[in-house]
Amino acid sequence: MINKLNDKIKKTNAPIVVGLDPMLNYLPKHLLDAGIKKHGESLEAVSDAIFEYNKAIVDATYDLIPAVKPQVAMYEQFGLPGLEAYKKTIDYCHEKDLVVIGDVKRGDIGSTSAAYATAHVGKVTVGGKTFRPFDEDFATVNPYLGSDGINPFVDVCKEEKRGLFILVKTSNPSSGEFQDKLIETEDGKKIPLYEYVGAMVDKWGADCMGDEFSYIGAVVGATYPEMGKVLRNIMPKSYILVPGYGAQGGKGVDLVNFFNKDGLGAIVNSSRGIIAAYTKDQYKDKGITEQNFADASRLAVIDMVEDISSALKNR
Amino acid sequence: MINKLNDKIKKTNAPIVVGLDPMLNYLPKHLLDAGIKKHGESLEAVSDAIFEYNKAIVDATYDLIPAVKPQVAMYEQFGLPGLEAYKKTIDYCHEKDLVVIGDVKRGDIGSTSAAYATAHVGKVTVGGKTFRPFDEDFATVNPYLGSDGINPFVDVCKEEKRGLFILVKTSNPSSGEFQDKLIETEDGKKIPLYEYVGAMVDKWGADCMGDEFSYIGAVVGATYPEMGKVLRNIMPKSYILVPGYGAQGGKGVDLVNFFNKDGLGAIVNSSRGIIAAYTKDQYKDKGITEQNFADASRLAVIDMVEDISSALKNR
Repeated sequence: MINKLNDKIKKTNAPIVVGLDPMLNYLPKHLLDAGIKKHGESLEAVSDAIFEYNKAIVDATYDLIPAVKPQVAMYEQFGLPGLEAYKKTIDYCHEKDLVVIGDVKRGDIGSTSAAYATAHVGKVTVGGKTFRPFDEDFATVNPYLGSDGINPFVDVCKEEKRGLFILVKTSNPSSGEFQDKLIETEDGKKIPLYEYVGAMVDKWGADCMGDEFSYIGAVVGATYPEMGKVLRNIMPKSYILVPGYGAQGGKGVDLVNFFNKDGLGAIVNSSRGIIAAYTKDQYKDKGITEQNFADASRLAVIDMVEDISSALKNR
Repeated sequence: MINKLNDKIKKTNAPIVVGLDPMLNYLPKHLLDAGIKKHGESLEAVSDAIFEYNKAIVDATYDLIPAVKPQVAMYEQFGLPGLEAYKKTIDYCHEKDLVVIGDVKRGDIGSTSAAYATAHVGKVTVGGKTFRPFDEDFATVNPYLGSDGINPFVDVCKEEKRGLFILVKTSNPSSGEFQDKLIETEDGKKIPLYEYVGAMVDKWGADCMGDEFSYIGAVVGATYPEMGKVLRNIMPKSYILVPGYGAQGGKGVDLVNFFNKDGLGAIVNSSRGIIAAYTKDQYKDKGITEQNFADASRLAVIDMVEDISSALKNR
């Protein structure tokens, strides 16, 4: 699956991923009204509206992008109907041949981690039949519980040729509270915890190589470009999934450190900046309304790719 | 909700929580057969079997225990039908007036953490109607992302009078890989990361007090009793949720350190040891078969309470 992701990035020339994170206040009113007309004021109404919203954005952008990253929390907050929209969105993105990164940030130990791996990148057998519960191509994973938590995910990924992005340095302002703390390594060196986790990602990934890259990648926030530079060197074979572009403050020029010399090895996420582009003044001048919201998403994808491409050219 | 948990522990004299973690290989054959007869070989068949399994165990134990802790991964691995069994289990436990701890180990930042909090301990409004998506009383949370990740959960808990258990020191063998690393604090002291996280839990919890305890608690594994002693002192107002008893190797005598002098302040989880008690030789002698599996769960609860009570008496 890492080969597919890498190939699609080369073909589209777009090292970006569209974050399908539907907040209630982004949903165009006509979609929510249609849901309520069908199901009444209910979670099912929101679920329908979310799927229609995602579908329109995917239809408007799928030829330009390699991948999408639905954030499961944004679906989970609407209970079972919300998660039904999550699953329908994943299935629809597969139909469009997009790589699907499930931003689930799961993490537990032993058989529990194995169960999460089954849920998101694995399969389960009942009697003579096999099912893929959520069927993402990649899942994001939290490393706080150590190797016991990661290994069951890695085992499933090896079998299924799917992949992980492990949280190393997150994009939020307080990510340093624990992640930046200086620790002593086994050989007496003092390094920040995120570097140590990065070295573990490199180790976990060494045994999971695709053609050019490992299918065990890392999450490093766009908001920390200097740390990105260091981590790029620590994990040369890992794709870096970079959140924090746009709304969280990351800019194209901040991103060059996350890429290898050949412009590969990183994939930058934007959620709000693309899916809620129709609310921005810059697109209102171009004939965008709430009705044709998805056209704004297409314009925002083109602008984002241009921003990153020119930063990579000028580095 | 922390007051309810504390009161129920006093009333039942049982500082324990039953982990409702249904693995496919624990499910008695007659329950799975009944599910398959109704739905064919499908995730829906497993979902039905899981709910019937949980219901029987709850019916056999609810008068003896204060709380249950369903592990969401074990449901998520069966996709949407699995999560339907999760929700039905929670609703049924509420009917029996049990405190429900959702072992979800979620953790993200900002609006995403807020969405997880909404999903598990909060509510969402659609038009004029309000829904509680999963409706747990407590949720477990991962701290790796720092305060930005925890604060949105705390905000929802304050409003809803529900609570959290934040991962501090987990029960697994490799938990030390990151959690035990010595870090330097702001004032130049060297302490293990888990102590630093424990101090943060105490800080987050100070503003969230119930009558005797904070509704912001911590997870500390039974397998690390000495660390439990230290953490008990660092977080005097936090309930400690203690996994790792039984199957993972923790014994009654290891647990005394997690409790305050008055025998309160900790709640010990057992999953396999109770829900799969029917597979143990020690209960087969007492007329237990796969058919009356839930009777074995009742016997196992009584044995576990006795083990912990006598350890607390003899300390």
